[in-house]
Amino acid sequence: MDERAALALLETELGPAGDDAAVVDGQVMTTDMLHETTDFPAGTTRYTAGWRSVGASLSDVAAMGAEATAAVAAYAAPTFDRAELEAFVRGASDVCEAVGAEYVGGDLDDHTEFTVATTALGRTDAPVFRSGARPGDAVCVTGTLGRSAAALELFERGDLERANELFRFEPRVAAGRAIAAYATAMMDSSDGLARSLHQLSEASSRECEYECGFAVESDPLPIDDSVREVTEDEAAALELATTFGEDFELVFTVPEDAIAELTEEVDVPVTVIGSVLESAEITLDGETLADRGYTH
Amino acid sequence: MDERAALALLETELGPAGDDAAVVDGQVMTTDMLHETTDFPAGTTRYTAGWRSVGASLSDVAAMGAEATAAVAAYAAPTFDRAELEAFVRGASDVCEAVGAEYVGGDLDDHTEFTVATTALGRTDAPVFRSGARPGDAVCVTGTLGRSAAALELFERGDLERANELFRFEPRVAAGRAIAAYATAMMDSSDGLARSLHQLSEASSRECEYECGFAVESDPLPIDDSVREVTEDEAAALELATTFGEDFELVFTVPEDAIAELTEEVDVPVTVIGSVLESAEITLDGETLADRGYTH
Repeated sequence: MDERAALALLETELGPAGDDAAVVDGQVMTTDMLHETTDFPAGTTRYTAGWRSVGASLSDVAAMGAEATAAVAAYAAPTFDRAELEAFVRGASDVCEAVGAEYVGGDLDDHTEFTVATTALGRTDAPVFRSGARPGDAVCVTGTLGRSAAALELFERGDLERANELFRFEPRVAAGRAIAAYATAMMDSSDGLARSLHQLSEASSRECEYECGFAVESDPLPIDDSVREVTEDEAAALELATTFGEDFELVFTVPEDAIAELTEEVDVPVTVIGSVLESAEITLDGETLADRGYTH
Repeated sequence: MDERAALALLETELGPAGDDAAVVDGQVMTTDMLHETTDFPAGTTRYTAGWRSVGASLSDVAAMGAEATAAVAAYAAPTFDRAELEAFVRGASDVCEAVGAEYVGGDLDDHTEFTVATTALGRTDAPVFRSGARPGDAVCVTGTLGRSAAALELFERGDLERANELFRFEPRVAAGRAIAAYATAMMDSSDGLARSLHQLSEASSRECEYECGFAVESDPLPIDDSVREVTEDEAAALELATTFGEDFELVFTVPEDAIAELTEEVDVPVTVIGSVLESAEITLDGETLADRGYTH
C-alpha cells in the first residue's frame, strides 16, 4: 500500500477528515511529519527547518480560511546540539510570529534521523473545504509557483544561502482568511498544482451532483523568478512549477464576479489560471494534466 | 547536551511553557513523539501503539485539569500495511473515545523506523500547573504505579497479550478535571514518581517564596498487582513503582482538609502518599529520593 492509498484509508476510517485540516467545534487542527532524507536537503539550516516544518502546518490552517492561533513541534535528532535547537526554535517562533500565531513549545525525542512533527491550530466559523468548486468558477493561485523546486536545485549546486531563503515561505494565513469570504473551494499547493487540481476535482465531484474538472492555461501561471535561475528551458520551468509542489500557495475556486473585489482584499498577488468545468477532465492548455506530483 | 538539558533550553526559549501542556486562551495543547526502539517493545501491537501514543498526549491534557477535546497522530513507518494502520487508528480512536475526545486524523510519513507523533487538545478556564504546591499540602497519586514496568518485563518474557493489556492505560482526564477543583499543583507520572516529585518541587520552588520538598512513605504506595507478577522482591517492586514511570497517573498536591471530599468526587482510587515540606529535600521513608527515572 503506498502512502496515498494509506491516507485514503485513514480518511475512510475517520469520516469527513481528509481535508487540509480537521475541523472540530470551530477549531481547525492539522499535523505533519517531516524528516531529513525526504524533506530537508543537505544544507538546510535548522532555522529554515523550524520555519518550514511549522510553516507547513500553518499553511494547512490557511487553506481552511482560518485564523492561525498556535503551533507545537516535536523535534527528534540523534544528538541535541544547543545551537541547532535554538535555531530551530527561532525559526519555528518566527514563522508563527509572521502569521500572528503563538509557538507554544514541543517535545524532544532521540532519533537516528532528524525528524520533526508539527501541529497547528486555527479558528474559523466558516471553514473552506476542498469540495465546493462550481462549474463557471475561476481557479486561482496566490503568489508564485516553483520556489521549492528551484531551492532544491540550488541546494544541490551548493548555493545554500539562496536555497535556504527560498525554502522559507510565508504561510498564506492572512490571504486565506480574506479569500475565505469568496472562495467555493480551497487547498494548499503542497503536493503541486497538478495534484492539487486533481484533489479539488475529486473532493468537489464527490460532494456535488456534477463532475468537476479544470481547464488551466500555462500563459498566466505565476512561475517564480527563481525557477529561471535554475533552468532556461521553458518546458522544464513549467514542469517544475506545475508538479513539484511544496510551494504552500493557496489554490482556490471563486465565482468570476468576485475576483475584482477579492484581489483588492488579499495581501498577496492572486492569479486567475483557468476555470472550473462540468467535466471530469483536468487540462493544461487543452492537454490532459496528469495526477502526478510530489508524494510526501 | 542531553534531552533534559535540551528540554530546559526549549522552556527557556519559550517562556512559561514547560508544563505538561501549553495553555493558550483557555486551550491546552501538547505534543509527544514516540518511536519503536525506545517506546514500543517487540510485541507491541499497532492497536496498543495507537492507544498508548495518543493516550500519552491525552494524559498531559489530564494533568492540566482540562477537558480533552481532540487529538491527531502522525504515523511514520517503512511500509504502510493496511491491517497495521487500521489497528493503529482503532487504538487511537478508542483511547479518545474512552476520555470523550475526538480523534480527528493525522499524517503519514515514510520512515525507516516506526515513529508516532501525537498532539492532543483540551479546554479549561483554570489550568493546574506544576507549581503551586504549598507546605502542609498532602501529595497524592491516582490509580496504581508500576504497570508499564511490569508490562516491559512481560514483553521480554513473551507474555504479549498481558503485556499489551497493561500497556493500554486510561488517561486520567475525568479524574484530572475533578481533582483540578482542589489541587494546588499537578502533573502526570510519565517520567516516574521520583522524577515527578522533583519536577513539582522545582516548579513550585521557582514560583513561590519558599522551598518546596516532599516526604513520601513507601507503605501506602499503590503498587500495581502486575508488579508482583514480575518480581517477588519487595525492594525491586518499590524501585519499579517509584522510578520506572510511564504509568500516566496523576501526581498532585492538595490541602489536607480537601482530601475527603476530593476522594468522593474522583472516579479512580486516590492515595495519599506523603506531604509537602518547606525544604528542598525529597525523601522516601526519610531517605533522599534521587531525581532519577525514565528519560524519554
